[in-house]
Amino acid sequence: MLNGLGVSSEATQRTLAAGDPLGTHRVLDPPGALPQPAERLDADASRSFETELVVDVETLNIDAASFRQMEDASGSPDGVARLVLETVARRGKQHNPVTGSGGMLLGVVRRIGSLAAHRGVAVGDRIATLASLSLTPLSLRRIVAVRPASAQIDVEGTAILFASAPLARMPTDMPERLALALLDVAGAAPQVARLAGPGDTVAVLGAGGKSGLLCAAEARRRVGRGGRVIGIEASPEFAADLRALALCDHVAVVDARDPLAVRDAVLPLTGGAGADLTLSCVNVPGVELSAIVATRDRGKTYFFAMSTSFTAAALGAEGIGKDVDLYIGNGYAHGHADHTLALVREHPALAALMSSRYG
Amino acid sequence: MLNGLGVSSEATQRTLAAGDPLGTHRVLDPPGALPQPAERLDADASRSFETELVVDVETLNIDAASFRQMEDASGSPDGVARLVLETVARRGKQHNPVTGSGGMLLGVVRRIGSLAAHRGVAVGDRIATLASLSLTPLSLRRIVAVRPASAQIDVEGTAILFASAPLARMPTDMPERLALALLDVAGAAPQVARLAGPGDTVAVLGAGGKSGLLCAAEARRRVGRGGRVIGIEASPEFAADLRALALCDHVAVVDARDPLAVRDAVLPLTGGAGADLTLSCVNVPGVELSAIVATRDRGKTYFFAMSTSFTAAALGAEGIGKDVDLYIGNGYAHGHADHTLALVREHPALAALMSSRYG
Repeated sequence: MLNGLGVSSEATQRTLAAGDPLGTHRVLDPPGALPQPAERLDADASRSFETELVVDVETLNIDAASFRQMEDASGSPDGVARLVLETVARRGKQHNPVTGSGGMLLGVVRRIGSLAAHRGVAVGDRIATLASLSLTPLSLRRIVAVRPASAQIDVEGTAILFASAPLARMPTDMPERLALALLDVAGAAPQVARLAGPGDTVAVLGAGGKSGLLCAAEARRRVGRGGRVIGIEASPEFAADLRALALCDHVAVVDARDPLAVRDAVLPLTGGAGADLTLSCVNVPGVELSAIVATRDRGKTYFFAMSTSFTAAALGAEGIGKDVDLYIGNGYAHGHADHTLALVREHPALAALMSSRYG
Repeated sequence: MLNGLGVSSEATQRTLAAGDPLGTHRVLDPPGALPQPAERLDADASRSFETELVVDVETLNIDAASFRQMEDASGSPDGVARLVLETVARRGKQHNPVTGSGGMLLGVVRRIGSLAAHRGVAVGDRIATLASLSLTPLSLRRIVAVRPASAQIDVEGTAILFASAPLARMPTDMPERLALALLDVAGAAPQVARLAGPGDTVAVLGAGGKSGLLCAAEARRRVGRGGRVIGIEASPEFAADLRALALCDHVAVVDARDPLAVRDAVLPLTGGAGADLTLSCVNVPGVELSAIVATRDRGKTYFFAMSTSFTAAALGAEGIGKDVDLYIGNGYAHGHADHTLALVREHPALAALMSSRYG
C-alpha cells in the first residue's frame, strides 16, 4: 500500500521512528511539503525521532534582511520581540513571512537520537545551527533580550535539528557572539574561494558589512598580487573600517542601489570592462542591476543577500543584453564553518573589527 | 565640473553624441534612472545617437499579463488600443503602469547609428526586439489592428534600440509566431550547452514545456551516448510528446512541486547520487527544493523559470546541507537567438511539435 508520497506504509513506520533526514516528519501544513517551504512545523520536542538532535536555545541570530523588516514594521526592539514570538507560535519556526528568511541559533545539545551519534557532538556541547531558522522546529518560552546592533535575540526555548541540518561546535578561542555572527555567513568566503583566481578583479558591493568583509578578505588571498579587489560601500564609517584593513585596492563610497554610480566606480578601474567576479553583499532591495553592470562580459555575478530578487536579476541582465553567469548564494559549502573561522583567525585586524561590531 | 552622475561635462558631451549603451540619455524622468524603471522616456527619433538603431514598428507583442489587464480594464479591443496609445504618449514606451510589464516588438530597421554597425543587421531587415518594451523608446502614429487571440497589436510607429538591447533578425524559414515563441525563451538552450558535458546526467524539470523541450534537446546533443537525460513532466500529454521525440533516456510523469517524488524519480537512476546538472523549467512556484534534491553533491542547479524564489533556493540548499551551485537563468547569452533557432531546425520532429503548439 502506498501513501501520497509513494512510500510503502511499512517504510513509513520505519521513517516515523527514525525521522526523515529532510525533516518531512515534522511538517504539519501543507502535507508532503519540506520543512523550509512549509507553513507550519511540529516543534514538540517531547516526541522523539532517532535521527534528531534536541537543543536548548540561548540566542537567535536573525537574518539581517528579516531583522530590518521587523524593525521597520514594528518600530522598536519590543516590537521585534512580539513579531518573533507571534511567528514562532504560529509557524513552529522563526520563518519571517515577509522576507521569507530566517537566521540561525546558538544553544546546548540536550538529546542525541540513536541514529545521530555520527554527528560529532555530545550532550552539553555548545553548538550553532547552520541550517536556516526558516526550517528549524522551534518553540519559545520567553524572549530575554533583543540586541538590534547584532540582529541577535536572547531567548529561552527548544529547537530540533534534522539529520540533514548542518551544525558547528562553537569554537573556544573567540567570543561566542563573534563566532555566531561569523557562522551565520559562513558560506560566503568558501564560495569566493571557488570562484576567484589569481589575477582576477573582484568587486564587492557592501564590502564594509559582515559578509562583505569576509568576501573581501577571501578575494584578497585568492587574487594575489596581480589581481585587484574593489570595495563598494555606502557608509563612510564602514568604508573607513574597510580601508584600514587594507584588503581592497580601491574603496569607493557609493550607494549600491545606484547602477550608474556603481558602473562609474568600477569600470574605469578595469579598462571599461568590468570585474571578473562581482559579489553582492548588500542587504537592501534594488542592487541587482548594479552588480550586473559592474561585471565584465562572461564574468560572474554572485548574489549573497537574501533581499535579492530573482526576476530583477534575470530580467535585468536580459534587458541590457549582459552575458554573465548569475549565481544564487548557497549558504552551505562543505567545511564552510572551519573555512570562515580560519580566515578570520588569519587576519587579527579583521577579527578585532568583527569582534568590536558583532562580538 | 561634475554632473549628478559623476561624469565630467566633457565626457557628457561625448556621451550625448554617441548615446549611453544603457540608454540613460533617453530618460526624461526621473533624472539618473535607467530606462526600465524610468517613468518617462524621450522617444523622439529625429534626435540621433550613434549607438542607436531606429526601427519602423509593425507589431507589438504585448506581455500576456499586461494584455489581459488592459482588456479587463477597458472591456474591448478598441479600449486596449486607447490604453496603449495613452501609455505610449505619456511614458514614451509601452510600459503598462499596472502590471509593470511590456512585451516585445517586430519591425524593420530604418536607421543604423555609426557606432551600431557591428550589430549584424542592415537597413530593411525585419527584426524582433528581445529587450522588453518596458525599456524601449516608442512613438505611435496609429493602431492598425488589435488581435486579442495572440495578444498582438499591429501599429505604425517608431522604436529606438539602445546598444545594449538584444535583438534578432526574423528567420524566413519558419512561421512568424513559432519564431517569436522560440525567441521568447532563446536563452535556455545556450546556457545548457555551456553547462552540460559528455557523459553527464542532466535532469530537466518541466521537460515537456516550451523551454524544457529546448533544454532536453540541447542536453541530448551535449551529453552524448555515455550521458543521460532525465525528463520530469507533470502533464501526461506533454510527457507523451516528450517520449515521442526520443530526447530523454527516461521520462517520469511527476509533479515537480513534490520534492520527495522528484527525489524518488531521479536518485535511483543515478545510483542514489543525483544529476550532474538539473534544469528547472517549471513556471509555477515551489519547485526550488525539488531541483536541489535531484542534483548530486557539487553538481549544478539552474533555474530558468521566472516563478523561482531566490530565498527558497538559497535557504533550501543551505537548510539540507546541499553543496550545489545555484544559477539564476539569464535570458540573454551571446548568439542565443541563432543558437535556439538552429537547434530547432536540426530536429524536424521538435520543430513540428513546437509549430503545432505555439505556431
